[in-house]
Amino acid sequence: MPTAEHCNLRIPGPTPLPPEVQEATSRQMINHRGAEFATLLREVIAGLAPIFQTTGDILLFAASGTGGMEAAVANTVSPGDKVLAVSIGAFGDRFAEIAAAYGANVVKLSVPWGQAAEPEAILWELQAHPDCRVMLVTQNETSTGVTNDIAAIGSALRTLGDRAPLFVVDAISALASIEMNMDGWGCDIVVAASQKGLMSPPGLALVAVGPRVWPYVEQCKSPRFYFDFAAARRYLAEGSTPATPAVSLVYAMHRALGLLAAEGLEQVYARHRRLAAKTRQGLKDLGFSLLADEQYASDSVTAAYLPAGVDGAAWFKKLRQEYGIVLGSGQGPLKGKIFRVAHIGYVTESDIDHVLAALQAMLHVNPSVA
Amino acid sequence: MPTAEHCNLRIPGPTPLPPEVQEATSRQMINHRGAEFATLLREVIAGLAPIFQTTGDILLFAASGTGGMEAAVANTVSPGDKVLAVSIGAFGDRFAEIAAAYGANVVKLSVPWGQAAEPEAILWELQAHPDCRVMLVTQNETSTGVTNDIAAIGSALRTLGDRAPLFVVDAISALASIEMNMDGWGCDIVVAASQKGLMSPPGLALVAVGPRVWPYVEQCKSPRFYFDFAAARRYLAEGSTPATPAVSLVYAMHRALGLLAAEGLEQVYARHRRLAAKTRQGLKDLGFSLLADEQYASDSVTAAYLPAGVDGAAWFKKLRQEYGIVLGSGQGPLKGKIFRVAHIGYVTESDIDHVLAALQAMLHVNPSVA
Repeated sequence: MPTAEHCNLRIPGPTPLPPEVQEATSRQMINHRGAEFATLLREVIAGLAPIFQTTGDILLFAASGTGGMEAAVANTVSPGDKVLAVSIGAFGDRFAEIAAAYGANVVKLSVPWGQAAEPEAILWELQAHPDCRVMLVTQNETSTGVTNDIAAIGSALRTLGDRAPLFVVDAISALASIEMNMDGWGCDIVVAASQKGLMSPPGLALVAVGPRVWPYVEQCKSPRFYFDFAAARRYLAEGSTPATPAVSLVYAMHRALGLLAAEGLEQVYARHRRLAAKTRQGLKDLGFSLLADEQYASDSVTAAYLPAGVDGAAWFKKLRQEYGIVLGSGQGPLKGKIFRVAHIGYVTESDIDHVLAALQAMLHVNPSVA
Repeated sequence: MPTAEHCNLRIPGPTPLPPEVQEATSRQMINHRGAEFATLLREVIAGLAPIFQTTGDILLFAASGTGGMEAAVANTVSPGDKVLAVSIGAFGDRFAEIAAAYGANVVKLSVPWGQAAEPEAILWELQAHPDCRVMLVTQNETSTGVTNDIAAIGSALRTLGDRAPLFVVDAISALASIEMNMDGWGCDIVVAASQKGLMSPPGLALVAVGPRVWPYVEQCKSPRFYFDFAAARRYLAEGSTPATPAVSLVYAMHRALGLLAAEGLEQVYARHRRLAAKTRQGLKDLGFSLLADEQYASDSVTAAYLPAGVDGAAWFKKLRQEYGIVLGSGQGPLKGKIFRVAHIGYVTESDIDHVLAALQAMLHVNPSVA
C-alpha cells in the first residue's frame, strides 16, 4: 500500500502539504510571547487579509474549523436569540446544531442536498422571521460539492438595511480556493481553517470579524473563554494570542501563504476552476452521474454517484490499495451512495488525470467491484 | 542572534522538540477518517494511559491547554453551580475565571504565590461550602514554580466520601515530567497539553475523564459542541474525533510518546527531579533568591527573583542575544520581578549548565545589567 508521502489524497481536507510547508511545520519551537512570534503572527494576518478581502480583525485559534464555527456562535448568539440557519448539507446542519447547542431559537432553511440556497428564499424566511439576529450560511458545502453564491446572498441582505441579521459565513472549504470578498459582499463573520485551500495541516481556525460584530460580542450572554473574540483581539494587538498558539501550524500557514502569494490569488482561483471543470467533465465522460446541479458546482470538491450495485467500502479500498488514491465518501444520507473527489489546495492537473485514469481502469477491470 | 534551532529555550512551554518529533511533525497528511489515523490515535491513547495512570477515557482536542480547561468546565459546571477554585498562581486564577465565565458560583481559595495548597485548608473550605459540586486544582503552577500535592489532596477528599466534589486537575505543565496517578489519587478529570512534558508542539489538549464524570456530563446545562465530552468519547470508540484532528500534532505526540517510553517513565521523572534540584542549587550558589518555598518546589520550572535594580527587559534580551538562552519572565504581580528557568520536556544536564554559566557571566561582566 502506498505511504502517505506517495498517496494521491483527494479528500476535501486535510489536503496534501506542499514540501515547503512540510519543512516549515517541522521547525523548532520559539517563545510564543516573544518578538519573533509576534512578527510571524502579524505576517500571517497580513497574508490572510487579501484572501478574506477584509479590513476587519482576523483572529486565529488553535482549533479545527468546527471550533471557529462555535466561536462565531458563542460570541454573537445569546440563549433564546432567533437564528436563521441556511443548510444545504452536512456542514450547514452542523452550524445549525451548534446554534441550537447555544440555546438559539433556530429557524432552519433546508435546501435539498445537491442544490444551493436561493437568495429569494432567504429573504422570504427573513420576512417571516424579522427578529432573526444572526444568519448562518455555508459558502461551500463539502458534503455535496455545492457552492452558495455569497455575493448574491449579500446583495439580497442589503435590501433589508439595518434590519439585516448578522451575516455569518462558513468558508472553511472555500477560502483560498474559491473567492471570498468579505467586505465587498457584506459578510460580518467569515470562518475558515488551515487544512483546505490554505494547504496547511489542520488545527488552526481563522475567524474574520467585521465592525458590525463587536456590539454583538459585547452584549452576548453565552459563556466563552477560549474562543472569546474580545480577548483574541486584545492579544492580537500585541502580536500574541490569549492561550498558547499552535506554533508549528502558524509556521506552516506562513509558508503556505507565501506560496499562494507567489502563484497569485487570481491564478489560484483559476486553477481551482479549471481542475473542477476537468474533474466534472472527466467523470461525466466515464459515465458517472454528478450529485450537484452543475450551475452551483463547487470549485473545490466534486461529488458523484457510485456505480449501481457497487460495494462502496470495497471500491474505496481498491482505489486506495491498488492506485494510491484516497477519495472522500458520502456523509449523512449520502453514505454509501456517492464518492467525492477533492480538487482543493495543493493539487495539479496530473493529480486529477491520475484519479480519472484509475476510475476508468476500475470500470473496465472488475465490473463487479467498479 | 541565535536561530530557533540553536536557542536554549527554557520557557515552561512550548518546550524544545526532539529532532525525531520535528521529523514526525513534518509528515504528509492522511485521511483523518481512515484506518491509518485510527491506529495512530489508538496508539497515542494507549501511550498516554500509563502517563495519566488511568483506565478512564482520554480525549484529544485540537486546542491549547486552556481549551482543555474550558472543556472540563463546560462539561461539568452548569450556571449557578458552586465550584471551589483552588488557586496558587496565574493558572489557578485562569481556571477560576473560566468557571466564572460559565456562570459558576465560584468559591476561591487563594494561596499566596510561591506556596502550595494545604489539603486541610481545602477540607475547611469544603466544610464551609458542602454544596460545591466541582473543585478545580492546579497540579503544577507554572507562574510560580510550585507543585501541589495532588495525592494528599486526593486523600483528604476521600474522607468526604460521596460528598466529595468532582476533583478536576490542571496537569498541563506537569504531565510526563511530574508523576500523575489519576486513578490512584482519585482525580476525576485531568487536563494536559502537548507542548510541555510531552515534548510536542502546542495545539493538542488532552483531557482524561474518569467514571464519576459521565453523569455530570449528562446533566450539565452549559452549552458546548466542539468540546463536548460525550461526542468525543463516541468518536474515539471508532478511532476518530468529532472535528478534524490536528494530524501533524498527533504524529508528533505519537513519536514523543515512543521516546518517553524508551527512556522509561520512572527515569523521565527522575531526570526532572535531578535537573530541578540542580537548577535550584545552581541559582542559590549564584546568590539568587528562589520564589517558591522549597518543600513545594516544582520539578518542571524554577522561579527566582531578578537581582535588585536590574532592568528586566534588558536582562532577558541580553541573555537571549548574547547567550542564546530564552527564559520565562514573571506573570501578573510578578512581572518584572522574577525570571523562570524551565527544566521540563526535552532537556539535559548541559542545557542547565549553559543557563547557570550564562547567569554567572552576566553577574560578573555587567553588574549594571545583571
